[in-house]
Amino acid sequence: MTIKPSAETLARFAAVVGEKNAIRDPAGMAGYLREWRDIYVGKSPLVLRPSTTEEVSRILKIAHETRTAIVPQAGNTGLAGGQIPHESGHEIVLSLERMTKIVGVAPDENTLTAEAGATLKAVQEAAAAADRLFPLSLASEGSCRIGGNLSTNAGGVQVLMYGNARDLCLGLEVVLADGRVWDGLSHLRKDNTGYDLRNMFIGAEGTLGIITRAVLKLYPKPQSHETAFIAVPSPAAALSLLSLARELSGNRLSAFELLPELALGFTEKHMGVRRPLTQVSPWYVLAELSDPVSEAIVRILEEALVKGFATDAAVAASDTQRQDFWTIRELLSESQKFEGGSIKHDISVPVARVPQFLAEANAAVERFLPGCRFMSFGHLGDGNIHYNVSQPLGMDKGAFLDMWEAMNDVVFEVVLKHGGSISAEHGIGRLKRHRMRQIKSAVALDMMHGLKRLLDPHNILNPGKVLPD
Amino acid sequence: MTIKPSAETLARFAAVVGEKNAIRDPAGMAGYLREWRDIYVGKSPLVLRPSTTEEVSRILKIAHETRTAIVPQAGNTGLAGGQIPHESGHEIVLSLERMTKIVGVAPDENTLTAEAGATLKAVQEAAAAADRLFPLSLASEGSCRIGGNLSTNAGGVQVLMYGNARDLCLGLEVVLADGRVWDGLSHLRKDNTGYDLRNMFIGAEGTLGIITRAVLKLYPKPQSHETAFIAVPSPAAALSLLSLARELSGNRLSAFELLPELALGFTEKHMGVRRPLTQVSPWYVLAELSDPVSEAIVRILEEALVKGFATDAAVAASDTQRQDFWTIRELLSESQKFEGGSIKHDISVPVARVPQFLAEANAAVERFLPGCRFMSFGHLGDGNIHYNVSQPLGMDKGAFLDMWEAMNDVVFEVVLKHGGSISAEHGIGRLKRHRMRQIKSAVALDMMHGLKRLLDPHNILNPGKVLPD
Repeated sequence: MTIKPSAETLARFAAVVGEKNAIRDPAGMAGYLREWRDIYVGKSPLVLRPSTTEEVSRILKIAHETRTAIVPQAGNTGLAGGQIPHESGHEIVLSLERMTKIVGVAPDENTLTAEAGATLKAVQEAAAAADRLFPLSLASEGSCRIGGNLSTNAGGVQVLMYGNARDLCLGLEVVLADGRVWDGLSHLRKDNTGYDLRNMFIGAEGTLGIITRAVLKLYPKPQSHETAFIAVPSPAAALSLLSLARELSGNRLSAFELLPELALGFTEKHMGVRRPLTQVSPWYVLAELSDPVSEAIVRILEEALVKGFATDAAVAASDTQRQDFWTIRELLSESQKFEGGSIKHDISVPVARVPQFLAEANAAVERFLPGCRFMSFGHLGDGNIHYNVSQPLGMDKGAFLDMWEAMNDVVFEVVLKHGGSISAEHGIGRLKRHRMRQIKSAVALDMMHGLKRLLDPHNILNPGKVLPD
Repeated sequence: MTIKPSAETLARFAAVVGEKNAIRDPAGMAGYLREWRDIYVGKSPLVLRPSTTEEVSRILKIAHETRTAIVPQAGNTGLAGGQIPHESGHEIVLSLERMTKIVGVAPDENTLTAEAGATLKAVQEAAAAADRLFPLSLASEGSCRIGGNLSTNAGGVQVLMYGNARDLCLGLEVVLADGRVWDGLSHLRKDNTGYDLRNMFIGAEGTLGIITRAVLKLYPKPQSHETAFIAVPSPAAALSLLSLARELSGNRLSAFELLPELALGFTEKHMGVRRPLTQVSPWYVLAELSDPVSEAIVRILEEALVKGFATDAAVAASDTQRQDFWTIRELLSESQKFEGGSIKHDISVPVARVPQFLAEANAAVERFLPGCRFMSFGHLGDGNIHYNVSQPLGMDKGAFLDMWEAMNDVVFEVVLKHGGSISAEHGIGRLKRHRMRQIKSAVALDMMHGLKRLLDPHNILNPGKVLPD
């Protein structure tokens, strides 16, 4: 339904940013049209790289007038294809990568204001330079950008203590579909004056407006961490350990990651990682406390060992060792690539249901395709498991990957049975859009379509993403 | 613009809940038509007391069909008149007070599900019975109800650590204006599947839908508290103490309330409260740590005394003494009543600007009406001050209260200059609706009106509240 922009329209767009920042040659555009997993490769006549909110606004005014589709893109690290244009070749990419300013850091009010194109790492570093913490933390933090983090409501490894990107945002500046600018750059902790507009745009994946600036929450920098790598006999034991750790630490648990033995095997074999424990256990937990009472982790582990929630553990004795533990966690995705195809599911269920979910999903997958290897890891503390299924040994990779949708069907059925989410932290984008009717009620979809019509009446903002047709 | 419901329509409404729960006599209705500060006294032909979501849905279907205005009411403790019908006598009150079930408590997933009419106290107690904390805490907790807390995004004294009502909610069930029910009762910590619908209804004061159930977040019950009543020389010193306390406690500060000497004078004189400190100081802070490292409060106070951020302090040596400190805070509003009229402002500014705001607002008020007494107290940690102005001694109370709007003008000008909010935690209701054009941009108002049209096309849900005409 999108309209192919005319040469004249393209020239008008280019004039806003200047020829240097209006990329039209295929080589220059290539990096914007392909995401890093190579699942989506789009086409576009033009990539625009505006440098100010005002330029974004002028671009949207032209788009609104000419009914040209715009695909906003920040760090191009998204895992659901939301940032890639369709193959029609009609959609223009609007990259925010030149809008990287850290506009201000106010340690006395614990806020940081940044342009949408600032990388997450730059935001973290600006906070650290002011002796503060910006707690959002994820694998792609060196290249993902804060506008994308907010547009996808990114999660990561510290959600347990600090929440998702949504919880870390106080205010937004958004360019609307018609080019008007909403200045919602609040620095306030409390403001009950009318409807909540900020949260409409967070997690909307650029389909309701383009986030150009944000006011973010900062926290005191933790003075200490206690980190342990723990062998646990089962996911149920890990869950009991989670409760114990939250209670005995006085809620100082900032990360609680579950890893299967397969993960240690893969990272040892392919990435040369050394095991933290000599004991081989079916499951492990990487747990971290921030600013705990001294030796809290030791008291937790002692009780866990007595109660059988844990069978062995190593406490990081230095920052280097702490980093070594985290390296294992960070290398999991990469290590899987050496083991053939992997069908991935970014799911969540209510925290207490994770063990049951894993048992039922594994059984269902085993029925569907015997011999699959279960690389289920992730944020147990949030009920968010990256339920990744590595192909059976010896199977053809292509044949396995052809089963992606059918495998999803099998897994999602178990997820939905437990009131779970089929996209806990990666969003819908293009990847899961066709599932929306399966997972959302007619009432919910009706409200979502209503919001889309209200804020983007001509359907020019990232069309064909998130919502089903 | 509302339509007077016919006798037949009234009978249809009454039939949904049964005559016993359809109140029409003036004496029976009186308690629903008047709020506790007696600022608004409304009229209504009928008060409905449904007992299930299904009954609420049937009521809304009739209202939608007959274009009858519905005013949802929970605990009737709101401070902005949002829960009281207009004087037209056309609007029907829908009280949620019979829907009080605690539907479920799941300590292993840290959630509690309740009907909208459950009192905040009942929710707190159900959480405590499961050895968990529901941290929302405010003066009216014995009578306010969770549906009202969510509809006004209530704040209170623990926002610093746990956030507003919005931050404590995982899922909602909402009856829409046309009677359809949105089941958004998610128990998930992470779910990025489409637009955020929950936050539209939170803080919307019943103008976009009627919240009938909620899934709430629970926390581990703190094992220990350290509480201090601290004399500070100035708001600026209090702010420095705030930073110090957050950093030295490892972010364990759960409350940080500012009180002026006038507050201690009033509570001593009128409520018989004993001062915690012999020293008379222009300002005081009531600070509390939850689950701190042992004696953290002592280390904070030692450093604060050396640096001059504090001049004296008492640390609660028992739970009784802790409660005594909190009693002073809780009696502030009541103690003011003995000192004549009080013009109130529930404002917030960026935390670091509180001292400057207080200085400028006091100077402006003094110019406007010499002799006013400044009873400014509240949640300094959130930048939220209840900037209450007690009348000059000897002035006529009525003459003073006639200056309400003019006084608001003076104070709000200073609030807006500092990027603040004129309603930090009480909402807009009727009280501040006429200010919306002053404080919101045309773009913001346009989106808010769009949301209202989308979700309540016939303007039957709490009409004439929140949004300006």
